[in-house]
Amino acid sequence: MADALQQRIDFIKAIDALKEVQRKTYLLTESRFENSAEHSWAVATMALTFASYAPEDTNINRVIYMLLLHDIVEVDAGDALLYDDAARAAKAIQEKEAATRLFGLLPEEQGREFRAIWDEFEAEESQEAQFAAALDRFIPMLHNLETEGRAWRENHVSYQQVIDKNQKIEKASPELWEYMHTRIKVAVNRGWLAP
Amino acid sequence: MADALQQRIDFIKAIDALKEVQRKTYLLTESRFENSAEHSWAVATMALTFASYAPEDTNINRVIYMLLLHDIVEVDAGDALLYDDAARAAKAIQEKEAATRLFGLLPEEQGREFRAIWDEFEAEESQEAQFAAALDRFIPMLHNLETEGRAWRENHVSYQQVIDKNQKIEKASPELWEYMHTRIKVAVNRGWLAP
Repeated sequence: MADALQQRIDFIKAIDALKEVQRKTYLLTESRFENSAEHSWAVATMALTFASYAPEDTNINRVIYMLLLHDIVEVDAGDALLYDDAARAAKAIQEKEAATRLFGLLPEEQGREFRAIWDEFEAEESQEAQFAAALDRFIPMLHNLETEGRAWRENHVSYQQVIDKNQKIEKASPELWEYMHTRIKVAVNRGWLAP
Repeated sequence: MADALQQRIDFIKAIDALKEVQRKTYLLTESRFENSAEHSWAVATMALTFASYAPEDTNINRVIYMLLLHDIVEVDAGDALLYDDAARAAKAIQEKEAATRLFGLLPEEQGREFRAIWDEFEAEESQEAQFAAALDRFIPMLHNLETEGRAWRENHVSYQQVIDKNQKIEKASPELWEYMHTRIKVAVNRGWLAP
């Protein structure tokens, strides 16, 4: 067995590949798609910034841990469009295998702890996981709204799809959902999102 | 005054530009330079993973907050090579102005809190700031060691420069420094780093 320090180094090395996983969301400048590593930074930083919009007694540090780790399985499984149900179902199986491989690189106890953080995020049952998931949904919508719906238009996404996939934000943070819902309706009026 | 939610949105929008600030460090695949946003994710995730190497009673959450925010000033000031003292001195002034601008986008109290986190990181006095700085130094060296010293070779960096700039890791984490110092000596033997 490698020593614990080397195991942790190996984990950090393995997840570096997340910087090369391309998402379906454009940067705000629209110069390119964003990648899953920089997205993970943005959404973790958003959690720190928007902590006051979480339900009372939410452990924001746990939210940040989840958001730092939530996408690392994409190192093996890649990203899939939120609105592509078939691709996402196929990806879910690969993600579980990726979680086993990646968290398995760590010393056993830490691997279990990180896997529990990831599983908690995926289950979306705890208020921390629900708030983390809400931010993970919020931020790509913000990028669409700031780029005249570019990724929505390119993928022929409709208002109803956006509502169906994202309305759960409301439970985690009514205030964030109200803001977003108002802007989504404006986007439909402007033709950025199919009615 | 914009309402507090819109101020926070404006902050998140402004720091998106960090994804387009190119660092002098290569990805482990060497496909390109890394950017400061994905670096921030990597080093914050490293803090979570390497928390047990911090001095006793280190507040690891504070370390993570620092690492999420530490580079955002590069949105205005850009990145500079660690070993280019003149560039780094010029950058330090721009960074303070950038901090005033960016944290000034936030609601006043939160802007002060975030500025205090950034100032604490910059000062490198608290054990949290010293551990955060140690990881921020550790990870680019790891990338050099895993790419046959590519960025070191391209910038004609010497062993003594690496020691001078990075030995402070030892104070924050003797174990991490011992690991790194051993590998740096191997790098010299292999010709990845000028003796």
